[in-house]
Amino acid sequence: MKSASKKLRPIWFDRDSETVKVIDQRLLPHEFVIVDMKTPDDVVTIIKEMYVRGAPLIGVTAAYGVYLAALHAETDEYLMRECEKLKAARPTAVNLAWAVDRVLAEVMKQKSRVEKIETALKEADNIAEFEVENCRKIGEYGLEIVREISRRKQGNTVNILTHCNAGWLACVEYGTATAPMYAAYDDGIDIHVWVDETRPLNQGARLTAWELGKYGIRHTVITDNAGGHLMQHGMVDMVIVGTDRTTCTGDVANKIGTYLKALAAKDNGVPFYVALPSSTFDWTLRDGLREIPIEERNPDEVRYVQGQVAGSRLQGAGGKLQVAQILVSPESSPAANYAFDVTPARLVTGFITERGICKATEADIKRLFPEKL
Amino acid sequence: MKSASKKLRPIWFDRDSETVKVIDQRLLPHEFVIVDMKTPDDVVTIIKEMYVRGAPLIGVTAAYGVYLAALHAETDEYLMRECEKLKAARPTAVNLAWAVDRVLAEVMKQKSRVEKIETALKEADNIAEFEVENCRKIGEYGLEIVREISRRKQGNTVNILTHCNAGWLACVEYGTATAPMYAAYDDGIDIHVWVDETRPLNQGARLTAWELGKYGIRHTVITDNAGGHLMQHGMVDMVIVGTDRTTCTGDVANKIGTYLKALAAKDNGVPFYVALPSSTFDWTLRDGLREIPIEERNPDEVRYVQGQVAGSRLQGAGGKLQVAQILVSPESSPAANYAFDVTPARLVTGFITERGICKATEADIKRLFPEKL
Repeated sequence: MKSASKKLRPIWFDRDSETVKVIDQRLLPHEFVIVDMKTPDDVVTIIKEMYVRGAPLIGVTAAYGVYLAALHAETDEYLMRECEKLKAARPTAVNLAWAVDRVLAEVMKQKSRVEKIETALKEADNIAEFEVENCRKIGEYGLEIVREISRRKQGNTVNILTHCNAGWLACVEYGTATAPMYAAYDDGIDIHVWVDETRPLNQGARLTAWELGKYGIRHTVITDNAGGHLMQHGMVDMVIVGTDRTTCTGDVANKIGTYLKALAAKDNGVPFYVALPSSTFDWTLRDGLREIPIEERNPDEVRYVQGQVAGSRLQGAGGKLQVAQILVSPESSPAANYAFDVTPARLVTGFITERGICKATEADIKRLFPEKL
Repeated sequence: MKSASKKLRPIWFDRDSETVKVIDQRLLPHEFVIVDMKTPDDVVTIIKEMYVRGAPLIGVTAAYGVYLAALHAETDEYLMRECEKLKAARPTAVNLAWAVDRVLAEVMKQKSRVEKIETALKEADNIAEFEVENCRKIGEYGLEIVREISRRKQGNTVNILTHCNAGWLACVEYGTATAPMYAAYDDGIDIHVWVDETRPLNQGARLTAWELGKYGIRHTVITDNAGGHLMQHGMVDMVIVGTDRTTCTGDVANKIGTYLKALAAKDNGVPFYVALPSSTFDWTLRDGLREIPIEERNPDEVRYVQGQVAGSRLQGAGGKLQVAQILVSPESSPAANYAFDVTPARLVTGFITERGICKATEADIKRLFPEKL
C-alpha cells in the first residue's frame, strides 16, 4: 500500500505518553484531527460517538480499550466491568465483543498487574496486525475477481460500486471492501469506483471518496438512490461491500441501504460480493433478519447534515474553515434512524475472506472455516 | 382540503400586475418566498432552476409561460420559438410539452393578438383547474385502497411510504401520490407516512414533510436507504409514488431511487402504487428503460446539501435565519447526478388515475383510456 495507508493508520499506540491515538473520522474530509484515549471511558465514547467506525477498527479500538482498562484496574472486578461497558458501546458490531473477549482471556491468564497490562497491550497489537494481514489477503483474493472481469471486458474500465466505508479507515490497513480495489489498482487494472454517499452520516462521500482520492483511484460520488439506475444501464460490473455482522448461513448485516443495492444487483445480474475477515462471522446466528439487532441511532443524524460551509476556505489556505450542521427537514418533523439492514444470503454472490472466496451458503462457508461450524 | 392547499397554491395569476406568481420551492421549508414571472424567459429559468418541480406543476407553469409569450409576441414566429424554449427546459417531464402544445393549439386558432392573449390565459387556467380535478379524483380512487388496508388491519395505523414530493406543491391542489393520503386522513383513517428524504435535493424531507405536517398528518422522515429495512419488518403497508413520465406499457420514470423501493416492495409483498393524471402517460413510448431520456443534472447538487444552519433562529422569532450550502464530499472528488430512474412495469402493483385504478399492463391501461391506444 502507498502513502495513504502504509504511513497512516486510523489507530496507533503511543508508547511515550501511554495513550492510544485515533483519527477523529467525524470531521473528515474537511478537518484532520487526532484524539487521545487515556481511559476505557474515553474508548466507549469514541466508539459510541463514532469517532471510529467500521467493524474491524471498532474491534481493534475496543482491544486497546481493554489495555487501558488493565492499566487502570486495581481489581479484576473493575476490569470485567469496564470490558462489559466496552462490549455494550455498539450493539451490532460483532468484532467488538470478539476483540474484548480475546484480549481479556489472555489478560486473565496472567497473575501480576504488570503482566496483565503488558499482555493486554501485546494482544491488542496482535489483533491490529491480524486485521492488517486479513485485509491484505482479502485484497489478494478479491483481485482475482476484478482481474477476471477486466479480462472479460478486454481491459476496459471495471466499474465497482461500494456502499459506506469499508476502507482502511474502517480497518487498520487496506480495508475490506476496498482491499480488492487497492490491489487491482496496484496491479495496473483500469478501475473506477461508484461511491454511494451513504446517508445519514455520509461515510461514502466523506471517507471512501477521501481514501480513494488520496490513493489516486478514479471514483465518482453518487446518491444512495442512483445505484439501481446505473446497474440497469450496465454501468456497474460488480458490487463490493463490507459487513458488521454475518450469520453462518450467509445473511449480511451492513450499513442501512445495502439490502436495496443487493436487490438491484440481483435484478440486473451484477455480482454482489461481501468482503470480510472471518471475525465478522457470528457463528451462533442462523437467521439474520430475526436475530441481528438493528441499532436505532439519534434521529438528528437524519435531520441534520454536516459539511463545510460553501465559500469557507481550507485551513491550509490561511482562511477559516467552517464545518457546520444544517437542518434539512422542517423543525417539527420527526425522523427515524435505523443504522443497518440485513441482506439475505440469497442475494449475495459470494464472500471474500482471508481464506479465499466462498458462496453465501452454510456449506460453502463451512468449507473455508471447518473448525468453526 | 384544508388551509394548506385550499387557500394556497404553488402557482397563480395576478390579474392586476399581469404576472404569474409561484412559490420558490428551493427555499422551503426554511423560507417562504414568492417569485414573479413576467416573461417566458422567467418561466424557463423557474422550471430549469427548479423553483417549481413536479410533473403537473411544470405543465401548468409552462402553460402560463405560453400566455406570457403571447403577451410579448409581436409575431407568431416569436411565439413558436418561445414555446420551443419552454418545451426544452426539462427533458423528462412529458406534461411540459403536453401543456405547451395544448395552449399553443388553442392560441393559433385565434386571429387577433388580444384574442390570442386571452385564449392563452384561459387555456392555462383551464389546465390548472383540470389538474386540480384530476388530483381530487386520484384521491378518491386511492382512498378505496387505503380504506381496504385499514379494514384488513382492523383500524390499526396504515403505514404508507412515499418517495420525493408528489404533493400539492408538485401539482396545484391535493397532489398525486399524496391525494390518497389527504383523502384518507379526511376520512378519519389512521395513517402514518414514511417520507423518503429523496437525495440529492431532499424534496421529501423538505417539501413532503412540510406539506404533511401543515395538514396534521403523522409522518416520519427517513433516509432513502431505510425503506427496504422497514418493508422487511412489516412496517410499510403500501408505497405510493408519483411519476414524471409513464409508458403505455406501464414503465414508470420517477425520481432517482424509485426503482430501488419498487424492488424492495416486490421482495416483501408490499403493494407499490403509482398515482398519476393521464397527461403523464406518454402514449408513444413502449420501453421505458430504452426510450425515456434521463436528465443528468449539476453534480454539485450531490456534493452540496442545503439547509438551515443549526442554531440560526427562525425569522418569525426575530433572529436571522441562515440557509447555507455545505460541501459533504472532498473538494476534489467528482460526483454524478442522474435525476430519474425507470421502474419496470413488472414491479408496479397498479396505477391510480383520474379514471380509476388499473394494472401496469398495456391492456389494463387501455381499458381505462381506450381512446388513447
